Amino acid sequence: MDHKELLRLLEDFKNSRISTEKALEVLKNLPYENLDFARIDHHREIRKGIPEVIFGAGKTPDQILKIVRSMQAGQSNILVTRSDAAVHELIQKEFPEAKFHPNCKAITIRQKTEYTGKGMILIVSAGTADIPVAEEAQVCCDLFGNETETLYDVGVAGVHRLLSEVERLQRARVIIVAAVMEGALPSVVAGLVSIPVIGIPTSVGYGTHFHGVAPLLAMLNSCAGLAVVNIDNGFGAAQFAHLINHL
Amino acid sequence: MDHKELLRLLEDFKNSRISTEKALEVLKNLPYENLDFARIDHHREIRKGIPEVIFGAGKTPDQILKIVRSMQAGQSNILVTRSDAAVHELIQKEFPEAKFHPNCKAITIRQKTEYTGKGMILIVSAGTADIPVAEEAQVCCDLFGNETETLYDVGVAGVHRLLSEVERLQRARVIIVAAVMEGALPSVVAGLVSIPVIGIPTSVGYGTHFHGVAPLLAMLNSCAGLAVVNIDNGFGAAQFAHLINHL
Amino acid sequence: MDHKELLRLLEDFKNSRISTEKALEVLKNLPYENLDFARIDHHREIRKGIPEVIFGAGKTPDQILKIVRSMQAGQSNILVTRSDAAVHELIQKEFPEAKFHPNCKAITIRQKTEYTGKGMILIVSAGTADIPVAEEAQVCCDLFGNETETLYDVGVAGVHRLLSEVERLQRARVIIVAAVMEGALPSVVAGLVSIPVIGIPTSVGYGTHFHGVAPLLAMLNSCAGLAVVNIDNGFGAAQFAHLINHL
Amino acid sequence: MDHKELLRLLEDFKNSRISTEKALEVLKNLPYENLDFARIDHHREIRKGIPEVIFGAGKTPDQILKIVRSMQAGQSNILVTRSDAAVHELIQKEFPEAKFHPNCKAITIRQKTEYTGKGMILIVSAGTADIPVAEEAQVCCDLFGNETETLYDVGVAGVHRLLSEVERLQRARVIIVAAVMEGALPSVVAGLVSIPVIGIPTSVGYGTHFHGVAPLLAMLNSCAGLAVVNIDNGFGAAQFAHLINHL
Amino acid sequence: MDHKELLRLLEDFKNSRISTEKALEVLKNLPYENLDFARIDHHREIRKGIPEVIFGAGKTPDQILKIVRSMQAGQSNILVTRSDAAVHELIQKEFPEAKFHPNCKAITIRQKTEYTGKGMILIVSAGTADIPVAEEAQVCCDLFGNETETLYDVGVAGVHRLLSEVERLQRARVIIVAAVMEGALPSVVAGLVSIPVIGIPTSVGYGTHFHGVAPLLAMLNSCAGLAVVNIDNGFGAAQFAHLINHL
Amino acid sequence: MDHKELLRLLEDFKNSRISTEKALEVLKNLPYENLDFARIDHHREIRKGIPEVIFGAGKTPDQILKIVRSMQAGQSNILVTRSDAAVHELIQKEFPEAKFHPNCKAITIRQKTEYTGKGMILIVSAGTADIPVAEEAQVCCDLFGNETETLYDVGVAGVHRLLSEVERLQRARVIIVAAVMEGALPSVVAGLVSIPVIGIPTSVGYGTHFHGVAPLLAMLNSCAGLAVVNIDNGFGAAQFAHLINHL
Amino acid sequence: MDHKELLRLLEDFKNSRISTEKALEVLKNLPYENLDFARIDHHREIRKGIPEVIFGAGKTPDQILKIVRSMQAGQSNILVTRSDAAVHELIQKEFPEAKFHPNCKAITIRQKTEYTGKGMILIVSAGTADIPVAEEAQVCCDLFGNETETLYDVGVAGVHRLLSEVERLQRARVIIVAAVMEGALPSVVAGLVSIPVIGIPTSVGYGTHFHGVAPLLAMLNSCAGLAVVNIDNGFGAAQFAHLINHL
Amino acid sequence: MDHKELLRLLEDFKNSRISTEKALEVLKNLPYENLDFARIDHHREIRKGIPEVIFGAGKTPDQILKIVRSMQAGQSNILVTRSDAAVHELIQKEFPEAKFHPNCKAITIRQKTEYTGKGMILIVSAGTADIPVAEEAQVCCDLFGNETETLYDVGVAGVHRLLSEVERLQRARVIIVAAVMEGALPSVVAGLVSIPVIGIPTSVGYGTHFHGVAPLLAMLNSCAGLAVVNIDNGFGAAQFAHLINHL
Repeated sequence: MDHKELLRLLEDFKNSRISTEKALEVLKNLPYENLDFARIDHHREIRKGIPEVIFGAGKTPDQILKIVRSMQAGQSNILVTRSDAAVHELIQKEFPEAKFHPNCKAITIRQKTEYTGKGMILIVSAGTADIPVAEEAQVCCDLFGNETETLYDVGVAGVHRLLSEVERLQRARVIIVAAVMEGALPSVVAGLVSIPVIGIPTSVGYGTHFHGVAPLLAMLNSCAGLAVVNIDNGFGAAQFAHLINHL
Repeated sequence: MDHKELLRLLEDFKNSRISTEKALEVLKNLPYENLDFARIDHHREIRKGIPEVIFGAGKTPDQILKIVRSMQAGQSNILVTRSDAAVHELIQKEFPEAKFHPNCKAITIRQKTEYTGKGMILIVSAGTADIPVAEEAQVCCDLFGNETETLYDVGVAGVHRLLSEVERLQRARVIIVAAVMEGALPSVVAGLVSIPVIGIPTSVGYGTHFHGVAPLLAMLNSCAGLAVVNIDNGFGAAQFAHLINHL
Repeated sequence: MDHKELLRLLEDFKNSRISTEKALEVLKNLPYENLDFARIDHHREIRKGIPEVIFGAGKTPDQILKIVRSMQAGQSNILVTRSDAAVHELIQKEFPEAKFHPNCKAITIRQKTEYTGKGMILIVSAGTADIPVAEEAQVCCDLFGNETETLYDVGVAGVHRLLSEVERLQRARVIIVAAVMEGALPSVVAGLVSIPVIGIPTSVGYGTHFHGVAPLLAMLNSCAGLAVVNIDNGFGAAQFAHLINHL
Repeated sequence: MDHKELLRLLEDFKNSRISTEKALEVLKNLPYENLDFARIDHHREIRKGIPEVIFGAGKTPDQILKIVRSMQAGQSNILVTRSDAAVHELIQKEFPEAKFHPNCKAITIRQKTEYTGKGMILIVSAGTADIPVAEEAQVCCDLFGNETETLYDVGVAGVHRLLSEVERLQRARVIIVAAVMEGALPSVVAGLVSIPVIGIPTSVGYGTHFHGVAPLLAMLNSCAGLAVVNIDNGFGAAQFAHLINHL
Repeated sequence: MDHKELLRLLEDFKNSRISTEKALEVLKNLPYENLDFARIDHHREIRKGIPEVIFGAGKTPDQILKIVRSMQAGQSNILVTRSDAAVHELIQKEFPEAKFHPNCKAITIRQKTEYTGKGMILIVSAGTADIPVAEEAQVCCDLFGNETETLYDVGVAGVHRLLSEVERLQRARVIIVAAVMEGALPSVVAGLVSIPVIGIPTSVGYGTHFHGVAPLLAMLNSCAGLAVVNIDNGFGAAQFAHLINHL
Repeated sequence: MDHKELLRLLEDFKNSRISTEKALEVLKNLPYENLDFARIDHHREIRKGIPEVIFGAGKTPDQILKIVRSMQAGQSNILVTRSDAAVHELIQKEFPEAKFHPNCKAITIRQKTEYTGKGMILIVSAGTADIPVAEEAQVCCDLFGNETETLYDVGVAGVHRLLSEVERLQRARVIIVAAVMEGALPSVVAGLVSIPVIGIPTSVGYGTHFHGVAPLLAMLNSCAGLAVVNIDNGFGAAQFAHLINHL
Repeated sequence: MDHKELLRLLEDFKNSRISTEKALEVLKNLPYENLDFARIDHHREIRKGIPEVIFGAGKTPDQILKIVRSMQAGQSNILVTRSDAAVHELIQKEFPEAKFHPNCKAITIRQKTEYTGKGMILIVSAGTADIPVAEEAQVCCDLFGNETETLYDVGVAGVHRLLSEVERLQRARVIIVAAVMEGALPSVVAGLVSIPVIGIPTSVGYGTHFHGVAPLLAMLNSCAGLAVVNIDNGFGAAQFAHLINHL
Repeated sequence: MDHKELLRLLEDFKNSRISTEKALEVLKNLPYENLDFARIDHHREIRKGIPEVIFGAGKTPDQILKIVRSMQAGQSNILVTRSDAAVHELIQKEFPEAKFHPNCKAITIRQKTEYTGKGMILIVSAGTADIPVAEEAQVCCDLFGNETETLYDVGVAGVHRLLSEVERLQRARVIIVAAVMEGALPSVVAGLVSIPVIGIPTSVGYGTHFHGVAPLLAMLNSCAGLAVVNIDNGFGAAQFAHLINHL
């Protein structure tokens, strides 16, 4: 609830347009809907500029469906991450426009179609195995209303593959880099451009990769001016890129 | 070296305005100056929009002085981080305008004074012990040409201290949050605004704080849409905030 | 064996009411029953105010059934944690009143029904994925004789969801908070009340969540006056809350 | 700010006893005093039943003195933890009643003297090296208004030393156990009593002790119904014990 | 190859009883048999007093069978650890006397039956879940020629269960303690006896148990005079206890 | 792209033999082929002396097949690591000469057959469980054009098994040692020879083995002059040994 | 308190030779002396065969002196570990026979001089930097009444240095091996003898040595039948070796 | 002792040229000299091609001097690493030709001056703070008889600084790369050349750098064909490079 609304509410209350009980009621219940197992934050799109997103892992298909129903009423775009084809099928029966993205296991229902971002968000991946994470970022950016492009398999072991795409790097407004074996890629990219670069360490690897800890540490220690999100967190990177792209 | 310059160089060369040897020479030597122990990247401000910054830790006073001399010629603002009063004294003899920032141990020489950023960068800290890190971020943002404000000691254990400042949070264009004991602060802040929030975990704490690992993990796991930099990395957060603020 | 019983045993022995051998025998064999693979501590409810609880993980269905039989004789409430529906079916054949709690996979047999606690224990969870752990705490508190209420999905990324429930927080005598992504929730809750708050980190998450280590560290570093139990340890939190609620 | 005060404020405002600006003003500024580098939460004793405590580590002597001055006006007892003799001397010049506790390096100024707790808090330590942490807990409990007793050097390697004190263990209302080499002590204590036992791992040790991680893990994995606070956190354990003792 | 054999070999060679080539040959080939994928150390029982043991994990059933054949010729007792019922069936076809131990998944073939140890090795476990590891230790001790007894489920949360068995603890010559949740048990046992106590941390647990790291650290930090083997390493503890019992 | 080619390209361009657009085109597109999900670095064999290798884990069978097709055109030997029998079958339909190596799950297609290395690469393993990793190294070395020999199950617990093979160790030009339980083996080997020894920690083990961390640390701390590659990284060790063997 | 004494006490009490109060008194107070900050376990030598040892780290010189006085009355040998020359000087004033061991910083007062162990304990170290730890073990073994020999700087990088001393290894009854860089040494030693080998990882090293974690893991993963004590714990190894040597 | 010498010794013995006792004596004592606290491996230069090197850390100045004296007799070059100026002064009194290298704190005495390596070893560092480690590598390579060149401060954040030196990279026979913040540098270097590249992670950094763990993991996970040595281990990298350069 933003500052202006707080002011208006207090004034309505002062002018007896609403009762004490009502004022307390509003303060407490307005911003979300209680499904018992979940509290849907319909207010979030106004407050954050991003609709609440359903993190599918650890929720039953039935819980997800109920949340989708609740959100659909709000006319926002709907996004379920870390889900699967079975959940998609269940949702599609009721919402035929629901689309499944098999690489990153996301489900989307698009109720708003315009792109509102100021520029293009470029999603870069170091290798083929990073594509699912990169695609989660791409799907989220797109659904939040941002134009996107992708650039895959440009790891630093063959640095010429990246250098040949410098022009595209420089055309973007924000860059997201998903990188696994070589946490080095985001550093090299950030050294070549003057726009924000967000690193996503990815968890595919073995041995001392420690499920993404190796590239995470590499990115956190870069002196090239990166910011970093959790391992495999394509959604988080997209959310952050979206905020920058909508300033 | 950006794309246009590459094109121009090739054309000059083609038109015999420069020789083969010269072209190779330029390609190799132009962008930095070799001090033997360091290679000053004068080209960086053009490429990245940020002058190269001297990371003081692990360099001798003499090395720092030599780098400052080399950079001063480039007319950029000069910033030495993680330094100390003795180094400042040495530099001040030659550059009387050099200023020391005792909380964060930075030295600055300002050769350009205008603020070029689009909005205000707000630096928030959870407690008193976070101030040195917050101040490193503030000094860097300021020197890179960004207006800044600060908001200190608003940790979540008394959440009302933060809520009373929501208005200021919403006036900023980018927010940097330095947080130690409670890695929670950046999450709560990010939940209240629709602009990018950058978290800096700080290393002051004890026991299971593990010198900043506890708040780092808390921030990386936030679902509020944060991006994170290395522990105590006020400079890195400032660099990232600056890039956003200059889009 | 408490102090008074020790005194009485020694006096009976001194007055030749019991023999030397008998005294040794009693000292050694009284407090538990040896099932060979397990030693049932019937004495525990007297000593600790909590019946021995069967930790189901790592025990065969047959072992669990034998322990249940042994405990049933003692007229305590019986609780099997970390079990499954198959074990429940086996037990139910012999003890039809055995109830299964599918979310947290606990089995309960209630032989005492009154609530003996002084107040209400409130169980709070940060998200939907924390509910199984929260429910383990709720089932255990209830079976130990405590009134309980629950408050789910009130994570700090939308802090207004929590603030609107402050009244309920303040009505409780003890609060248990299960929190996963944001280990921040227990800190914020503890900042709002003047009663003990017990944090349970939960293991659902990914990447740098490290199966619950991230929220565990966040809770241990809170300056809001929390105490913490093991990751996912709903039973441990309930046991501790029960002891407080029965002082 | 508790629920009743919120109600009253809203009514005063409705009845025009206070203006809109005033209402906002009060909501924002009442609960703390801004010293610029710190925001003193005078409201905390009302909200939490514990005065705000000054964590001395990382604050300059001058900052500590200013906070003490601000708090002294509030008539609460004042506690500075993790400080040193030099700070004590500085404070004592202005507040002659300030007392220094050399083992745990705390400074106390007592402005309220009655003991308001319901029972006695027993502080137990496993060895001689744990005494500083145990004493921090004892000093804090005492200053918060709780009667305390101590029981030192009763580690489990000679379990008879502990068994001979069972009577005292059972006389307490809450027990705090500081334990280093043997994280085992809190488990054994908790097995002997039916009251809450709070474990504090301590950091003194070597090798695989990992500065307190070994006893921390031992305590978190106890099945005896413990709750745990951060390594060396005598203050946190005291705060939690105090809340239980004042229910 | 022990010292005396070396001396005799050199003398035989000097007296021309064996050729230079032969001497080299013997030095190189005597002590093991090369199965290509494994080199059977038949000499080990002479050198170490323990027959080579087949670590079943990571070997194919066929490889295990071939090694068993090779070892059977040597008339030693044969032990396969970390195996399964299918391998047992395969071996039993050829060696009907092969016995399977389902709790610890070991296979044994006994070719020597006398007990050669000086005393009894007592194997103690803290809980029911530790029994598989305790049993691996028991089976190995027995097969190596040591008398054994077992004492299960005597964890320290009910320390009276252990105290009532002090007599048996003191009758042993060596004690092996497998302990999971409470790494405390070996410390308490070692405090009660004057014989060597070997701790085996076990991996069953959850959360901060970290698959056995918690009890491992507790044991390594005990000041009661323990020695420790790897997590779940019942075989290693048995081997060490056997060496002590055969001094 | 090596130095000479850069020079020639610049001269062709200067002499108008190629246009500006062409020069840029060549600079950018020559060295790889874009399959959209992967960029095949055909240039790599020239630049590195090793054909690009397909890391099979995380790629779909269809993606692998497409990359194989693209590489086959380049007349290099083709190697797919971390694959499986199903992928092999798919490839074999189109490339009947494709061979499957079941121990290490590699697929090879040999288009060049001569051995170009200067000497023999010896692959040593400490135990039977290390053989899959050792074999990955052997298959890679062989396919890259190096003669190889293998020496398996010579762990240091029976050091005579190794000493009897010193002659073979000394005949090699490079030695690769895969070692699991005993990270000690590479140290002992390196102490016996005057050629480079490369250690591969392997991940098979349990408890404190931590999936290969134990032998990794042992190897990194050896003072015998080893170099180390990632856990289980037979391919990496082979690549490094190949570079040495082709100097 | 051992079994026989318990029996006798109960009989004395039954026969009214001692009163109820006396019996309780004896049970509680006999075994130790309370110095307030420490409880001296005079009973320990009877129960464990080892006098209580003073761990000097973290105790004030005055506390150590008081404990020495209390122990001296008991006629045991006295040992202070992890102390320093200043403490020694203080003690020597009162106890001129107190001896300082500068390498391991131990202080000893010998009141019993005979060697009671069955055989010789050999202390082996891998390098020069391990000598302080090895010497702590040697001093403790000696003071507890065991004959000792030492063998220093025989690391496995030059395995011949060790092989030339096999005879001495085989003459010992127990071997203690302190090993730093190469955690491998205890494995190799254990492979050469048929007696118990105890490994002490030492903390001197750098980088991935992690202050002793590298050799600790190496030793725990040895398949040569080692038992291990804490990093740098020469005292613990000596205590364990002593128990074996006195069976 | 190599194979031929073993053969000759056996033959001498057979022909009665040496006695049984003598043969045993030689076998045991030949290869090293026992200084009691250290065993000098004079034989090492023959066996390994590298003289034994004195690791200065943890040795007293007097011990170092004695080892230097012992080694000087062997006419090898002498190298003390991790030492300091005071030790150098002590040694210089007796050996005036001893030279101190202040950056890496090494002491060298050169008794052999020719360069025996096949090519040039290039030592590269990513930043100024890596120079001490790079210099340790350079000093060692040089003393072992290898020509060296250095290339400092070419980190990947400004990748053009490295690309301009490709020619020098390609002129080397072996490359050693010391890299701190960006563990990425060795990957990028290895991608540009077809010779062995050895990575040394360095420990200078802060926060999640974890004293060199971050670059270590980055290097181990590179797919560019690196081999890695311990953090800060300039000596180890030099030893390995030397072996390659002398093949």
